[in-house]
Amino acid sequence: MAYRALSEEEAKEYALGIPGLFEQGAQLTSREIGDGNLNLVFHLQDKKSDRSVIFKQALPYARVVGESWPLSLDRARIESEALQLQHEILPGLVPKVYHFDKELSLTIMEDLSDHIILRKGLIEAKTYPEFAKHIGHFIAHTTFYQSDFFLAPEVKKQKLAEFINPDLCKITEDLVFTDPYYNAEKNSFNPLIEEQVKELWVNQELKGQVAQLKYKFLTATEALIHGDLHTGSIFVTSASTKVIDPEFAYFGPIGFDIGAVFANFVLNFAAQEVRIKNVEQRNVYQQYLLESIHQIWDVFEQQFTLLSLSQATDPSLRNEAFVQQFIQQVKEDALGFAGCKVIRRVVGLAHVADLDTIVDDTERAYAEKLSLYVGQQLILHRQKWAKEQSISAPIRSSFQQWEEKQHDTATRFGSVG
Amino acid sequence: MAYRALSEEEAKEYALGIPGLFEQGAQLTSREIGDGNLNLVFHLQDKKSDRSVIFKQALPYARVVGESWPLSLDRARIESEALQLQHEILPGLVPKVYHFDKELSLTIMEDLSDHIILRKGLIEAKTYPEFAKHIGHFIAHTTFYQSDFFLAPEVKKQKLAEFINPDLCKITEDLVFTDPYYNAEKNSFNPLIEEQVKELWVNQELKGQVAQLKYKFLTATEALIHGDLHTGSIFVTSASTKVIDPEFAYFGPIGFDIGAVFANFVLNFAAQEVRIKNVEQRNVYQQYLLESIHQIWDVFEQQFTLLSLSQATDPSLRNEAFVQQFIQQVKEDALGFAGCKVIRRVVGLAHVADLDTIVDDTERAYAEKLSLYVGQQLILHRQKWAKEQSISAPIRSSFQQWEEKQHDTATRFGSVG
Repeated sequence: MAYRALSEEEAKEYALGIPGLFEQGAQLTSREIGDGNLNLVFHLQDKKSDRSVIFKQALPYARVVGESWPLSLDRARIESEALQLQHEILPGLVPKVYHFDKELSLTIMEDLSDHIILRKGLIEAKTYPEFAKHIGHFIAHTTFYQSDFFLAPEVKKQKLAEFINPDLCKITEDLVFTDPYYNAEKNSFNPLIEEQVKELWVNQELKGQVAQLKYKFLTATEALIHGDLHTGSIFVTSASTKVIDPEFAYFGPIGFDIGAVFANFVLNFAAQEVRIKNVEQRNVYQQYLLESIHQIWDVFEQQFTLLSLSQATDPSLRNEAFVQQFIQQVKEDALGFAGCKVIRRVVGLAHVADLDTIVDDTERAYAEKLSLYVGQQLILHRQKWAKEQSISAPIRSSFQQWEEKQHDTATRFGSVG
Repeated sequence: MAYRALSEEEAKEYALGIPGLFEQGAQLTSREIGDGNLNLVFHLQDKKSDRSVIFKQALPYARVVGESWPLSLDRARIESEALQLQHEILPGLVPKVYHFDKELSLTIMEDLSDHIILRKGLIEAKTYPEFAKHIGHFIAHTTFYQSDFFLAPEVKKQKLAEFINPDLCKITEDLVFTDPYYNAEKNSFNPLIEEQVKELWVNQELKGQVAQLKYKFLTATEALIHGDLHTGSIFVTSASTKVIDPEFAYFGPIGFDIGAVFANFVLNFAAQEVRIKNVEQRNVYQQYLLESIHQIWDVFEQQFTLLSLSQATDPSLRNEAFVQQFIQQVKEDALGFAGCKVIRRVVGLAHVADLDTIVDDTERAYAEKLSLYVGQQLILHRQKWAKEQSISAPIRSSFQQWEEKQHDTATRFGSVG
């Protein structure tokens, strides 16, 4: 069947044509529930058995800017293959894929409606005691088993070619690493932070550091990474974590996935600064966010080290000094990428609900300025911070520094007035 | 025509079938002149017009170990495409390709018989006043124009996939980065240096550093590099330089090509230590070798910097601080890769004539031990050395250090005896 975007009705018909997907005589409902920009998402349910599945179909363009931004449908193949690889490595942490249709760029997968999107949970200041462990585990295992540490070199190179993902990488190259650092047409930011944004555009040192990180994103084929691991790509319950949407997957730097999670915890931290009015409650929740960052890194570091020293198939990489230096580099990268991802969510095209749903413009500007400050510190000091005992301590200090600066400024103006 | 290895007679017939390659009525001679391990090379000449061309045909196995080491014929396509790309960028510095036959894995190209192989010239202690400038220019331009600095990201990614070169990369991965550091079956070394070789095998710090360099070779897709730029892959006259044999070409670290040239100058330096008996003549020639290393780096650094700041198509990479940091990293990589390439030529499967043609075992062992020492210093101190004003000064000091140690030892033994 040639490609066409499915309607709810067509999705239903398609589902009934796949043997074993639903029981015979199923009475299906079909609902398009996508809120993304690049895909249709249908929820299909059998009223009789209650069984439900998700249809995800790639659109040949990015919705956000109309049909004018064409996007390769090949990303649906990439997403479906990445999901299946991740499922082989970690069956519990990604949705199960039931069926893939290349022509329609359609993946049929497990319904996770009993989970909620992590971003939503964090905005509501919920805590997820298992999440940090799960995601550290997820990143360590999915990257290790899809890297030169484990794959035979010829297999790695073949996979590298199969997962070339130019359209989706270009989105990241532009929106994360390029546009926020000049007056790009696609940028979008709160007019109240214009001064801070313009400071970014003329900060040559910062731009030099961002260029280093962009260059790494362009050239470092360390592992098959998720490529878009923000808190909107993660489903959770208090006991379960499911990572979805790996359509940006490609062979890239391992620190990029870790940095994406860190960035979204930092953004939530900044948003909670004005969202939670009770100081004590706020402190407790922000402490939870920082501890999560700490634990994610700890779990990743321990597990990747253990995997490298025990299961690396290339004996020359199974060297303690090398593994230690490599993990240190990943840490530094993760902090830098986190900074870039924080800044793009404040200045660039695509924002996060954590900040955007703060109704009061001034309050939102406060949280945005705080994000921009910490984002820059992450980029500029990543090498130094990566050497400190605790990965979250310098982030906490950076938040405090900014708060103190605000306080100083207020006092100064106060004494003048 | 299905693949078959050509005979001298068949090469002649094939040549006459290519319109315009030779004049009508050409009286051809055909001679297989290959001394390599992986290919047939025919010299075809028309006795009437004196016009000559080279046929290079890939063999489906590595000759050195019989037919038991199969090698993809796809490397002939890679070599022919790389040559044509390099020719577009720098017409004067590579042979012209007249014809490529994919089925036969056969490239017909310019005959360079008026040039000699640089290795041969260096062994005979000849100097090439234009070479350093030419090769610095070659590496700067071929890598810049085939990198993320210049290519659009989607074009780079497409080329990356086209130049995936698993078989030939595997040779480098094994012979350069793995085998010399353990008791590998394919190793081959002078029994008189066994002690020094065994020291390599247990040096965990060195092996950790080599792992870092190997990892970079496996994962850093900086530019389409030559991949095997030793002095046997370079033809010279006093005024001309031609780079041949890019069958190892793939997207890899830029420092690898520079390091390959450095390594072969270092190996020649060590060999001349026993080859040239006249101290004054020796000093003058070794000085020339070190100045060449210095000038190659200078030309590369100046030209790559200039190209990056004036012609980088990605404005975010056209940042002075970034370019400076990047070049510094390439310098460090080049020194490290040079060290690996020096060591593999002493311990590994494939040696160099500079050392191997030293007839006296003890003299050869002296030059080999010297090479091993300087090779290790290059790897271990690359970060520090890359920060020094002169790239050749620490290499010179390293040679001197070893000489002094030998002298000390001799004196010590002398005083005991």
